[in-house]
Amino acid sequence: MGKQAIGVVGLAVMGRNLALNIESRGHAVSVYNRSREKTDELIAEYPDRKLVPAFTLEEFVESLEKPRRILLMVKAGAPTDATIAALKPLLDQGDILIDGGNTHFTDTIRRNQELAKAGLHFIGTGVSGGEEGALKGPSIMPGGQRDAYDLVAPILTEIAAKAPDGEPCVAYMGPDGAGHFVKMVHNGIEYGDMQLIAESYAVLKQVVGLSNEELGKVYTEWNQGELDSYLIEITSRIFSKKDEETGKDLVDVILDRAAQKGTGKWTSQNALDLGAPLPLITEAVFARVLSSLKDQRVAASKVLEGPKAKPLGAERDAFIESVRRALYFSKVISYAQGFAQLRAASEEYKWDLDFGTIAKIFRAGCIIRARFLQKITDAYTKDKAIANLLLDPYFRDIASNYQAALREVVVAAINAGVPVPAFASAVAYFDAYRSERLPANLVQAQRDFFGAHTFERIDKPGSFHANWS
Amino acid sequence: MGKQAIGVVGLAVMGRNLALNIESRGHAVSVYNRSREKTDELIAEYPDRKLVPAFTLEEFVESLEKPRRILLMVKAGAPTDATIAALKPLLDQGDILIDGGNTHFTDTIRRNQELAKAGLHFIGTGVSGGEEGALKGPSIMPGGQRDAYDLVAPILTEIAAKAPDGEPCVAYMGPDGAGHFVKMVHNGIEYGDMQLIAESYAVLKQVVGLSNEELGKVYTEWNQGELDSYLIEITSRIFSKKDEETGKDLVDVILDRAAQKGTGKWTSQNALDLGAPLPLITEAVFARVLSSLKDQRVAASKVLEGPKAKPLGAERDAFIESVRRALYFSKVISYAQGFAQLRAASEEYKWDLDFGTIAKIFRAGCIIRARFLQKITDAYTKDKAIANLLLDPYFRDIASNYQAALREVVVAAINAGVPVPAFASAVAYFDAYRSERLPANLVQAQRDFFGAHTFERIDKPGSFHANWS
Repeated sequence: MGKQAIGVVGLAVMGRNLALNIESRGHAVSVYNRSREKTDELIAEYPDRKLVPAFTLEEFVESLEKPRRILLMVKAGAPTDATIAALKPLLDQGDILIDGGNTHFTDTIRRNQELAKAGLHFIGTGVSGGEEGALKGPSIMPGGQRDAYDLVAPILTEIAAKAPDGEPCVAYMGPDGAGHFVKMVHNGIEYGDMQLIAESYAVLKQVVGLSNEELGKVYTEWNQGELDSYLIEITSRIFSKKDEETGKDLVDVILDRAAQKGTGKWTSQNALDLGAPLPLITEAVFARVLSSLKDQRVAASKVLEGPKAKPLGAERDAFIESVRRALYFSKVISYAQGFAQLRAASEEYKWDLDFGTIAKIFRAGCIIRARFLQKITDAYTKDKAIANLLLDPYFRDIASNYQAALREVVVAAINAGVPVPAFASAVAYFDAYRSERLPANLVQAQRDFFGAHTFERIDKPGSFHANWS
Repeated sequence: MGKQAIGVVGLAVMGRNLALNIESRGHAVSVYNRSREKTDELIAEYPDRKLVPAFTLEEFVESLEKPRRILLMVKAGAPTDATIAALKPLLDQGDILIDGGNTHFTDTIRRNQELAKAGLHFIGTGVSGGEEGALKGPSIMPGGQRDAYDLVAPILTEIAAKAPDGEPCVAYMGPDGAGHFVKMVHNGIEYGDMQLIAESYAVLKQVVGLSNEELGKVYTEWNQGELDSYLIEITSRIFSKKDEETGKDLVDVILDRAAQKGTGKWTSQNALDLGAPLPLITEAVFARVLSSLKDQRVAASKVLEGPKAKPLGAERDAFIESVRRALYFSKVISYAQGFAQLRAASEEYKWDLDFGTIAKIFRAGCIIRARFLQKITDAYTKDKAIANLLLDPYFRDIASNYQAALREVVVAAINAGVPVPAFASAVAYFDAYRSERLPANLVQAQRDFFGAHTFERIDKPGSFHANWS
């Protein structure tokens, strides 16, 4: 029996689906799992596929062509470290480990450096698209040694999703942790998108008074235009799904406590470290947290009153269009913040990220796939150095044409007592970003007053301290 | 010569002022600095004070009564670790190190545990009040071994600020990192307060059109009422300060780039870790970051247009009162978030924090000192277990009476294109917190749709997954 070009360690759903994806492109794949049950199950379920089981790591490593290509699909954190430690003595110089797990990029930087000392290559790669994406074509964001990437690129390119223009959704992101970093920001952006859609739902339901059936139609219609995206598509379908037990609309039966796995939190924490303003995504993360405090909210709802929403009259359709515009412009603002964070990271960690390419590989396979991403690629193609997407002519036009709608929707929500933290944060960011003068001079005066922290002046360089008392 | 009851290591401005404060209460104080110049300067400047210089750590340790009480006022991080490592072999069991620096609470937890193994006590204490507070009476937030605290409590009590009712602003916060944690949240709250005041300034200047002189009068008047606080007081004074060079109002000469030292960021990052919603303070942190991107803002102001603010007419005075109410209610919401974070931390780290006492020791000495803190103490005195300050009758009344003003001000600012991220975030938090039902059911439906993450139901316990396609 010949040796395989690639092997997969870890056969939970993402690992097994990636193995099946690779195999479907004509490659025999070595597969290994710490407990053999998962391996046996996979082989039993797919007896005709070229999956080559190994039951020890030695056997697994021995079954691979050199340089070995090993895709780790293991739980992030300590289990990944343990797997790497067990594999390391079995490997030869030039072998390539590929971590496709949900790993924090700082762990990837550390592992990349440690393994490099032993002559081993380490690729940390984001894989987005969930179970189905893994099986049929995910968006893939690899980072690590460039020459090692070139050795795995052919297979990754085969298994990646294809954008509408046929381009594969995979590209080399940059050294060490760049791939996992881009995946982290992708997930943060996903949090923002989902919260913005949720707020549009709240406004359409509570301010406009739409039924689930009407909501389904609105999102279906929106999905035909510039909001065309996977998340809007599934939203439109969610509203027509019935609960099998009660026959009610399933969306109304689902408890309003949003869960999270932590990547949104990582994105916000990193933005705080980088000093990159990311308020919208951070509001989205906190909105999930706040939703989870269901018991407190129920108690508070009984004692804290707010205004009552007044039903709209003839202006209903115009207002629905305003909500669409508010959603699209807020989404633009969220991506402007996310891509500004990528730029800050690229400078801080010396990654030389290619922002246009990043938007490009998000166009298919991943959760945030959307027609609109092409506009981001276009913006960076026109001007690679653009500091913020809001300055690009296309997005500037959106800002110019849609800001009135965003203001209208936020004002209506505030007056109706409907919480729109992400929409409101979008307006505040937009207005602050375009402010030549902010009231931060007062903050600097206060800091100098109470702590002698000094201030700068508008009329000359330097640090100054006033004698305030 | 006898031995001293306490010594201070590190004679930068905070260390020397604390040493002078302790000495002023009748205690001789041993003083040591790594480079002897600072020691010589201090002794030369205050020849008649009972400051006992030491020029080696051996000499310093030898000069102290047992159990030794050593206040470390060293730069946080590696310098503090280095100082502790140098002191440790010279100390005896039962000696007490007190870190009064600006230390991250996780470092304090680590040091407390490491030193405990050697029989040494370690108190991490927040010290707030800046240079002047250190000299005349700061707010002090110590955490660590309770019995060690009792041995330093008499001196800390003497040097602490005194509240209007005469009570000293110091109290035992809890084990290990509790003191530095409370100080961190204090600083986060300070970021929120300062941003809210800055937003009120922006609205009064840009929407109402007040001059600096009028602004000074408004804040002076506000400082007579429920907003009575140190930060409002210094704000009122800032507006009358002239620039000595140009004769202009100094506030207008100061560059609008707010700096920061990182404790606000820590507070937000910890809130994200705890899952405690802290959107207002986080918006304040991001607002400082965004203000620092001055060049980008200037460029953006030339291409991104917004609405023009319309000057107010006869309703001017009523609107100024609305801004005052908006500021006070937003402040209440910010503290509600900060104290909810303290509660979450108390549970997570098993500190058994006393929230009423924390508000009490903030009443004097520290930057956020304010009349309103008594209301927080009162709320926790009435109900120690209250989940959120907004549920307390006094704050509920504020919510009931002032929310219309807050909505009015945010709406006016949004319509005028004036960024109010913290005010807007306050409204969103308030409306979300009092929402029995949030649109998070849609988020859960989406997560289950694309990632099989499951959802809960409103009608029975358990985790469920729907077949969406």
